[in-house]
Order: sequence, then structure tokens, then C-alpha cells
Amino acid sequence: MACHHDLAGDSYDTAFTVDASRVTFGRGCLREVGDRAAALGVTRVALFSDPVVAQLEVFATALGALRAAGLDVVPYTDVHVEPTDQSFRQAIDFATGTKADGYVSVGGGSVIDTAKAANLYATHPAGFLDYVNAPIGAGVAVPGPLRPHIACPTTSGTGSEVTGIAIFDLLEMHAKTGIAAPALRPTEALVDPDSTDTLPGPVVACSGLDVLSHALESYTARPYRRRAAPPRPTQRPMSQGANPWSDLGSREALRLLGKYLTRAVADASDREARERVMWAATLAGIAFGNAGVHLPHAMSYAVAGQVRRYHPDGYPGTEPLVPHGMAVILNAPAAFSVTAASDPVRHLEAARILGADVLDAVAADDAGDILSDHLVDIMRAVTMPNGLSGVGYSSADAATLADGALPQQRLLSNAPLQVDHTLLTDTFRHAMRYW
Amino acid sequence: MACHHDLAGDSYDTAFTVDASRVTFGRGCLREVGDRAAALGVTRVALFSDPVVAQLEVFATALGALRAAGLDVVPYTDVHVEPTDQSFRQAIDFATGTKADGYVSVGGGSVIDTAKAANLYATHPAGFLDYVNAPIGAGVAVPGPLRPHIACPTTSGTGSEVTGIAIFDLLEMHAKTGIAAPALRPTEALVDPDSTDTLPGPVVACSGLDVLSHALESYTARPYRRRAAPPRPTQRPMSQGANPWSDLGSREALRLLGKYLTRAVADASDREARERVMWAATLAGIAFGNAGVHLPHAMSYAVAGQVRRYHPDGYPGTEPLVPHGMAVILNAPAAFSVTAASDPVRHLEAARILGADVLDAVAADDAGDILSDHLVDIMRAVTMPNGLSGVGYSSADAATLADGALPQQRLLSNAPLQVDHTLLTDTFRHAMRYW
Repeated sequence: MACHHDLAGDSYDTAFTVDASRVTFGRGCLREVGDRAAALGVTRVALFSDPVVAQLEVFATALGALRAAGLDVVPYTDVHVEPTDQSFRQAIDFATGTKADGYVSVGGGSVIDTAKAANLYATHPAGFLDYVNAPIGAGVAVPGPLRPHIACPTTSGTGSEVTGIAIFDLLEMHAKTGIAAPALRPTEALVDPDSTDTLPGPVVACSGLDVLSHALESYTARPYRRRAAPPRPTQRPMSQGANPWSDLGSREALRLLGKYLTRAVADASDREARERVMWAATLAGIAFGNAGVHLPHAMSYAVAGQVRRYHPDGYPGTEPLVPHGMAVILNAPAAFSVTAASDPVRHLEAARILGADVLDAVAADDAGDILSDHLVDIMRAVTMPNGLSGVGYSSADAATLADGALPQQRLLSNAPLQVDHTLLTDTFRHAMRYW
Repeated sequence: MACHHDLAGDSYDTAFTVDASRVTFGRGCLREVGDRAAALGVTRVALFSDPVVAQLEVFATALGALRAAGLDVVPYTDVHVEPTDQSFRQAIDFATGTKADGYVSVGGGSVIDTAKAANLYATHPAGFLDYVNAPIGAGVAVPGPLRPHIACPTTSGTGSEVTGIAIFDLLEMHAKTGIAAPALRPTEALVDPDSTDTLPGPVVACSGLDVLSHALESYTARPYRRRAAPPRPTQRPMSQGANPWSDLGSREALRLLGKYLTRAVADASDREARERVMWAATLAGIAFGNAGVHLPHAMSYAVAGQVRRYHPDGYPGTEPLVPHGMAVILNAPAAFSVTAASDPVRHLEAARILGADVLDAVAADDAGDILSDHLVDIMRAVTMPNGLSGVGYSSADAATLADGALPQQRLLSNAPLQVDHTLLTDTFRHAMRYW
């Protein structure tokens, strides 16, 4: 394991830049969406959701509040869960045709990401691949601000409501990619824990473990001072590495998840636990939006993309599916075992904040095992599958999974150590079975 | 001591709203100001500073970076430290005449606040008292966004770079008042610890103790759920009370100050300590910008306004002056002794985070004394005066000081208990001498 981030001292960055959108948090705050959209000058709203959420009370609440504020509302409820270039294009066509001057998204990360893309291309028309991250897309800079977008998450998971990232599957390449630009960050987020009251436990588990990994990956990402300085300061990337701001949000998210996640999964009526997990999701979103994720997320795209048979309890439909949070967390114990050597103290501190019993006299060499073992305890407590073998993979798939993860260079370059195909293959093999 | 915040349950607010501007932090980041102003579309910059800072390298650095980016720069270096309506008006006249399309402020809170006011009135002309907080001013809502403003603090103190507040003395009324509106928050903050390398120790002490009180006041402010809900959600005040977001920043600022403030004051060459104190100032600014301060700050305006003879070491000039941070902290031990009963656990936690040795079995009744005693220890360590008597007041002045503090209702209503003239007088009397 070599560290590939060794540069001449004066080439490293020396500062970090943090951005955060306006966030309103609290039970019932979804009802503020009409007043807030009006205050942003919006008159005609494109209201995004997916077919399942569109049937729930949460959607009716948002729609009612927007109409009560005197706004013209055009619903779009065809968002594809796990969006594709095709579903993005369909949403962009809708947005372009509807002449909306503002966007409201009510749903999980797929809905919020789709609204971001629709807003982007309807506001600044371009060829579809123009704004997509290089090397798959052209990585063209977004030319200016987008129309106002109020994001209203209905899962305590992705953090998309506070990030400038939109992820999708590019079907023809069988690749997960996305668009990443500060302009994509929603203008406001309305984070209403009431919206998660009816979420099934398995969904809370998967989305909460995504949050946990956002926090852990941000906390253990390559430090911002070990990244090359950008050519111009305003080109500092959002994935700038761990920094004191993201550390603060990451630590608090880890503390809250260690205390409340299993309760929130086990008992839908535990309002305190569900509220705290949703706040953790927002904090971890703000953290990873300013630090970036790395190995477990890069690996997750291959795990989700190459699934053959698995379909989890609590999720609609029957098609093969590894939910995003599950695809992430199944890699996490193996990944953090590998990254621990880059900064054992930090990995041990994360384990301690999560609730692991870490002795003061512990050896640095044990940091990876301690964090990894504690993650496995949490995964078992919320009945995750036993590693990648639990969702249908075997060690024979490790190299192919590595093939799928290696192109995620935006994420892999944010890891605290150099990642190559061999390391990915070994880590996938380690992730097959944990107990 | 009565709690005046008892409302019918359904009248309390149930959510909080947090805002933060873009913040860049790190040594040398002041040099980014040209690239950042250009990226904001600015072509002609009004560069604000005060006569002392204008002679320092930090001002030359900012000026050079702006010019290197090809911008037209018009300096205004006549900012009055502790601004007045008169000095604000002068700056507004300058800004109006100069036709700048962007603002950069390089200095302490006085400079940043003056640039905020100049930007406001030059962008949205109005009678001077129109935007000033009621009841002194008309409290008219700011009609729209201001021109871009990049704030570059040169003290680790006020947090003005991340708040929407501008404070000044209204000369004819001998009153400290201000303008508070989200639109006033600078577009970006460039927080460069290099800027504080040459600050005298006493200045670091006073500004650092202002930060400490920002964090403590935000942490102990009336909780957001104990404030009446606003008529409309978008009218939720910036002084919305303690909330999970402000708590996070407050706790981290307290931890950093407990560890680094005395070191930063004692040794100007202790770069680590000065850097951490500056980060604490930014975090506490974000916290109080979303929670609000209360009793010690409300009292400070009377202390600063009624001073007769005192002039501190390390400050230029000879006129009577109690620096803002000193005027705040001299009240703090007395004020927190009073507020502790509202939430002893929280006051004890603050003392513990600051570094006090708090036994688990401590009685709730002792919370005020424990926090107060620990603050006194810190004040002595950085050689603050011994209470208000140390800056020339006596118990005979307590009622007159209370007269001066009572009109600060925006702040007093954010205290965790009801504050009347008697309580203020008693608290000022208690603040006269601590050891």
C-alpha cells in the first residue's frame, strides 16, 4: 500500500472551502414549502416525485402547501428510482416543456437528483453528456446559477438535499456516473422527520447505513492538505478531502447513528430515534458534500450494477436490486480495514464515537479490525446480509467487481491511500463474508 | 425569576432554519480574493478597511490580489472603529458614488459591518432608519439580494463575516443598535489565520472572549422550541434560539477556546493556537448567526456606551474605550450565574467542554457557580480587568447600566429567562468584582 499523494510541499492545497444551502429542520416543516417557494420568487413550480411517494400523504402535503401559497403547480411523478440517463432525459424534456420557474422535489435521493438534472438542463440547455463528470462526460462547467429548487427528502439517507451531486446509470455503458457542481445544490432543504414515519424498517436500515458510510468516508478521506492545490482557488473540488468543517458534521452524525440507528430501524414509532437519524443524514450530507466519499461508495456502484438475483425485503417490485445503502455498507468493513493504516488514530476515534469500547492502550495496528468489527456488529443488529455473499456474489466475482469500481476515479482519488485493481479485488474478496 | 416564554403548545415554533455563506479557511487564502471576486461577476470593487489595517500587509495582499485579477478597485479606508450612524452614512455616500458592483471588506467587525451597510443602502436606497431594527428604526424588510460581498476578517473575533448583522452607535440617542437581515450576510468569507499573526495579545484576548461568549450565549439561548412560531415560516428570525445546528458549532468553539485561547493570547508565534482560535471564531459566528446572543451582549452595549475613563493596553488612541469583547465578558460570569437555573445540565456541559473539572455528582444548583468560576479563571489567565469595577464602574452605576441595557429587547428576548430592570441591575452589581 503506497501513498500516491506525495507532492512537493508547495503544491498541496492550504485551505478548504465549505458551502451549505439553507436548511430547515423540524417536524411539520414540509408545510413551509409554499411560503418558501413564493419568497424565492417562484410562480410556477415543477413538483418532482416518484410513483410510490406520489401516493403518500407527504406528497399531498407539499402539493397542498404550494397551491395554498397561490402557486401554479405542475407535478412530475415519473421519477425512476435509481435514475438512468433515459429517465433523466425524460425529466429534462418535461422540465423544458413546462416552463417552470422553480423546482420542488419530494422523495429520496433519486427524486432530488432527477430534479437537479432537470433544473440544470432546462435552465442551461446542453448536450446530455456535456455536464456529466469526465471521463464519461465532457465535465463542462455549469455556466451560471439554476432556478430555485427546494428539496424535501422523504428518507433519512442520501443527503442529496444539501449536495451538488446527481447520480445516474448510463445504460449503454452499464456505468454509474453523475454530475457534480456547486450550482446543483438545492437552494433550500426542508427536512421534515414526519416524512419518515411510515418508512419500513429495512429502508431505514439501508438509508441509515448509507449515512453512516457518508460520515465515515468523509472523516477518513484524504485530508484536504494532502490534495494538490487547484489551478485556481475557485476550482477547488467539492470532494476536497477531510477538513475541520466536515469532521464536525461527520463526528456528530456518527455519534447520533451509534446511539439511535438500531432503535430507528427496530421501531417505526420511536419518533425521537427517527428524528435524530434524519438530522444525522443532513449533517453527514453537509459533510460529504464538502469532503467527498471514497472506497465504499466507489465499490458500491459495481455491487449495485452487477447484481443478478437479490431483491431485499421491504422494497417494492421484484427486479434484482441491492439498495444503495446496502451496496455501500457491505463493502465498508473490508474497506476501512484497508484504509485504517493511513490514520489509525482517526479510525479508532470513529469507532469510539460510534460506540465501540476502545481501550486507551490499543495498538495502532488494531484500528482497522476494531472499526470493522464494530461496523459488523451494527450491520448484524439491523439484519444486513452477511457481506457480498449475502446478495449473491462469490470470490470468483471479485475481479469483475474491481473492473466495475476502478473507473470511479473521482471517488477513488479521494481515498487516503492509492487504490489499484489488486487492492480493489482483495477488498471485494474480504467483503464476501463477515461472520 | 419567571419564564415568560410559556405559550399554548401549538403556538411554539417546531422547526429551525439555518443559513451559512460560503467560507474558505486556511493560511494564505486571502490571496484567493481576486479570483473569487471575479468568479462572482464583480468588475469594480469597493475595498473597505480602517486606517490602521490599511497600513498592514494584509490590506496590501488583498489589494494586490484584486488588481491581479484585473478588477477595478476603489479603496475606502476611513471606516470608524465602533461605527456610528455618521460613519455608516459616510460609507454609504462613498458606496453610492463609486458605482461599485461588489464589495470586499478587510478588517475587524467594524469594517465588515460598515461594508454590509454601505452595500445595503447603495443597492436598495432608503432613509437611514428604514432598515434599522425596530423600535429605534422602522425595521423595513430588505427588498432583495445585495451585491456580492467578500468579507476577510483580520481579528479572530466578531464572526461578522458569517452573520447578517451590522451594529453601530446611534449618536443622538447614545444607543447601540443595528440592522439584522439574512441579505446582509456576506456572499463569501475568506478566513486567513495569517491575518492575525501580528495582533497584540490583548486584542486576541478581547476578541477571543467575545467568541467565547458568542458560543456560550448561543448554547444557552432560549431553545428554538420555546419561541413563538412566526406568522409566516419565512419570517423565522435569525435569533431563533439554541438549536441542534448552533449547538454543534458552539460546542466545538468552546472546546477549541478552552484548549487554545490562553496560548493564542500569551504567544503571538503560537501559530497552531491562533489558527484554532480563528476557526473557533468562525464556528461561533455561524452558531450565533443562527441562534442569537442574549444577556452578556445586551449588557455589553451599556458597558461600552457609558465608559468614562478606561482605555486598555494594546489598543490605539487614548479615548475612553472598553473593547467589545471585554465589555461582553465582564458581564458573562454574572449573567450565566443567573441563566444557569433555566437549564443547569446545559450550563454544566458548557463548563465541562471549556475544560472545567465537573464531577458527575454535582448538584444542579451549583451549575451557575461552576461555569461562572471557570469563566473567571479564563479571564484571569488572559489578564482581563476584575469585573466592571476594573473599567471604572461602581455599584452606584448598576441601575444606570440597566437603563442602557433594557432597550436591547432583540437580545433580551432571546435569553432563557425573563429579564427586567431589577434583574439587570442585580446582574450588573454582581459583575462589579469577581475576585
